[in-house]
Amino acid sequence: MSLDRIRLASLHDKVISAEQAAEFVQDGMTVGMSGFTRAGEAKAVPLALVARAKTNPLKIDLITGASLGNDLDKQLTEAGVLARRMPFQVDNTLRKAINQGQVMFIDQHLSETVEQMRNNTLKRPDIAIVEAVAITEDSLIIPTTSVGNSASFVEYADKVIIEINTTVSTEFEGLHDIYIPEARPTRGPVPLTHVEQRIGTKGIQLDPAKVVGIVFNDTLLDSPSNVTDPDDETQAIADHLIAFFENEVAQGRLPKNLAPLQAGIGSIANAVLTGFKHSNFEDLVMYSEVLQDCTFELIDAGKMKFASGCSMTLSEKCGDRVFGNLAHYKDKFILRPQEISNFPELVRRLGIIGINTALEFDIYGNVNSTHVCGTKMMNGIGGSGDFARNAHLAIFVTKSIAKGGDISSIVPMAAHVDHNEHDVDILVTEQGLADLRGLAPRERARAIIDNCVHPMYRNALNDYFERACAKGGHTPHLLREALSWHANFEEHGHMLTPAQQESAQPA
Amino acid sequence: MSLDRIRLASLHDKVISAEQAAEFVQDGMTVGMSGFTRAGEAKAVPLALVARAKTNPLKIDLITGASLGNDLDKQLTEAGVLARRMPFQVDNTLRKAINQGQVMFIDQHLSETVEQMRNNTLKRPDIAIVEAVAITEDSLIIPTTSVGNSASFVEYADKVIIEINTTVSTEFEGLHDIYIPEARPTRGPVPLTHVEQRIGTKGIQLDPAKVVGIVFNDTLLDSPSNVTDPDDETQAIADHLIAFFENEVAQGRLPKNLAPLQAGIGSIANAVLTGFKHSNFEDLVMYSEVLQDCTFELIDAGKMKFASGCSMTLSEKCGDRVFGNLAHYKDKFILRPQEISNFPELVRRLGIIGINTALEFDIYGNVNSTHVCGTKMMNGIGGSGDFARNAHLAIFVTKSIAKGGDISSIVPMAAHVDHNEHDVDILVTEQGLADLRGLAPRERARAIIDNCVHPMYRNALNDYFERACAKGGHTPHLLREALSWHANFEEHGHMLTPAQQESAQPA
Repeated sequence: MSLDRIRLASLHDKVISAEQAAEFVQDGMTVGMSGFTRAGEAKAVPLALVARAKTNPLKIDLITGASLGNDLDKQLTEAGVLARRMPFQVDNTLRKAINQGQVMFIDQHLSETVEQMRNNTLKRPDIAIVEAVAITEDSLIIPTTSVGNSASFVEYADKVIIEINTTVSTEFEGLHDIYIPEARPTRGPVPLTHVEQRIGTKGIQLDPAKVVGIVFNDTLLDSPSNVTDPDDETQAIADHLIAFFENEVAQGRLPKNLAPLQAGIGSIANAVLTGFKHSNFEDLVMYSEVLQDCTFELIDAGKMKFASGCSMTLSEKCGDRVFGNLAHYKDKFILRPQEISNFPELVRRLGIIGINTALEFDIYGNVNSTHVCGTKMMNGIGGSGDFARNAHLAIFVTKSIAKGGDISSIVPMAAHVDHNEHDVDILVTEQGLADLRGLAPRERARAIIDNCVHPMYRNALNDYFERACAKGGHTPHLLREALSWHANFEEHGHMLTPAQQESAQPA
Repeated sequence: MSLDRIRLASLHDKVISAEQAAEFVQDGMTVGMSGFTRAGEAKAVPLALVARAKTNPLKIDLITGASLGNDLDKQLTEAGVLARRMPFQVDNTLRKAINQGQVMFIDQHLSETVEQMRNNTLKRPDIAIVEAVAITEDSLIIPTTSVGNSASFVEYADKVIIEINTTVSTEFEGLHDIYIPEARPTRGPVPLTHVEQRIGTKGIQLDPAKVVGIVFNDTLLDSPSNVTDPDDETQAIADHLIAFFENEVAQGRLPKNLAPLQAGIGSIANAVLTGFKHSNFEDLVMYSEVLQDCTFELIDAGKMKFASGCSMTLSEKCGDRVFGNLAHYKDKFILRPQEISNFPELVRRLGIIGINTALEFDIYGNVNSTHVCGTKMMNGIGGSGDFARNAHLAIFVTKSIAKGGDISSIVPMAAHVDHNEHDVDILVTEQGLADLRGLAPRERARAIIDNCVHPMYRNALNDYFERACAKGGHTPHLLREALSWHANFEEHGHMLTPAQQESAQPA
């Protein structure tokens, strides 16, 4: 604990313990908490809340930026604290509770949560709990490794608890750009026109009268990223994409520095971006949600000149390098509220190339990002819809098969649709790339089956498509069969029937 | 024919016949043509093209604003002229050809077609054919009753044919506001911040060197709107919506003039808006695609003070009133390019209330706007996605049953998804209104089944939902049954099995 970090002296007497802070959270409250993809979440207070719930049970609606680290969602679920949770999560225990209908999960476009609060179509938080590096003399909260929705939570909540994380360097001050869109109906344009631009303040504007407690956390760090290393398949996906971009440049459809890149969280998108290290592209920029290891590898390799995000989720090794040399990186990246990192107005204006991971897609290019077999929530749509709908190019990547081949990621009909045919330009698996731009559904199916499908599923998909076309329609389907692959998997562990498996082309 | 309408004298010698103009269209060309929802399409030249194709066959890719009047899509289809068609249509003959796979139809968000041309991800037109009121001395084409994509077609095409419709009053000059977003990556904000605002020019900038012909049409009018009168069900839908808006105002979530209204084309949306005539709301404004009869009825009733659209599609009666008194209406509406009327940046900034018609929706609120039984194209997504994704409120309306009750508009799983759970706020049928804001899927299902479903289908949907919940999942489904209602209808003409029909609650 160091009072130096509270430069607004009038707040010095607000320092309390995490346990005391947790007492401000009451049963039935809506809580807005910092944290985005395991970065910058409040840590000590929610842990104290978990402890307190054991003797003094309570249920809250918890709204964050996105997913939390430090197993917080797990512990909050096990302690029975979560009645409702939004807008995103990645925790296995919470996922089970969601899928059993025990926690009501509201899966949202990540740019929309605070817009809905601003409009009062979503309840505003009773209390905001946000992690900070410091509080400045002019009442600004300096966030840590993510901005998420914290700025709006602090604006809309009645009470504010600030958790100062002294393990995070004070050099973070100056790395953020906090801008909140004006209220409608008198809103003007969001003035950002290039990724490096600053349009806001270096911290979150705080009304000191709202502060009910300041808690010091001197020990708990962000959980490191758990992305896995690239493998042969993700390398193949990266190679297909790089060849595609090279051709776009050759055809004059993209400049040599491409367009601002967005990449979804996760191992595949991280591997794809890392693959750019050995490309011919130069002066790349990123306008994305999460800055991952790949961002800093591209910066270090001299391939990327600037990155804008709303959080940074790094492996331990990459974190050591970046956080240990913040002065070196300080003019190369910026962290913004997720509403701004994902704002549709800006995604379209900047002409972003969005690269996101699909759980599965169908032969017509409808993408399922969220629901295993159409019913079980995986993580949430996250920002993929914010980007895909408005991007210059909406690209989805996935490996062509999962579970050792028992699942094909390309199916006759997606069992849940997060991104439909209207919004999906390019699909890539390790097998190849389907360029769907300007194609009608029957043409899309041909491109997808020929380029993206694993050989062991190609015959079965061709068979489905041909029989569906014989029946007719703009988007031909056999309704009694369209979801049978998912049902087969649920019932006997493989998407194809034994007969279909026999007639499959060998891998 | 009156050369007064060509005020740029250097173009006087470009006047040719429609037949001569049609000769400029060559086999394999991409043609960009004016026309949006039966308004402002070029008429004489495409009819000459149909005639010419009988002796001199050709195939073209035809891109318009939206649907065409004067049976042009029918005649072009019958003449075998259409290889590819985008981004929207409503013609029965063309629809059949699309569903038989004879015409490749690319169903697009209506704000995106020319953005894709600008980025060279969609082929630019070889030739543009646009209807006009006049050509000014400073090389502006003054459009007629729609702007559609014409401004960009004229910019991107190599050759331009202008069809001057002398049946349209020259008073149309001054009713348009033509603005084209800047090219990326150096695009700035689109500066519009209120619906009445002018941000462009009164006509389409023309390079006179591109003009290969000017054709006069002195006889052919726009086809009148074919919306039907409100009936009991559409009146009930309007009443539910008005009660909802009244409550939003009472709760302080909307001001008394609501927010800029958008309404999709068609009888239901038209009836809903007409219902506002007898509401307590005042000073309404519209920021929409199509200005329909309801727009002018609300203006005449003193309820609406301004309307912005990209086309006007009126019944004969309403057309007589409006076109016969343009001076009276001239400061009350404006026509813009469809890219601007539907631009996501503006839809979000203005906080639009979008009211669009669903073909069907499912118990979780996924909306199908386009595909009958998931396979057969009806019209196209149109602008519904441009609005729903970015709107302050995304509202979808439909009657709860169709075909005398053989079809339920609410199904276990939508057989095609154009708008998913993330983008749908409010659903309304004549039965009632489901407010889905802030709800998790299982809660959405309860709200939808209880409020929107026709009684004769309620038991069957409750049964499905309960059995699906017993199986589990965030969005519970029974995969072998999810699409069975559509399959039942295809196979025996009713969505329920005979056993289900027996146990149905009486209507």
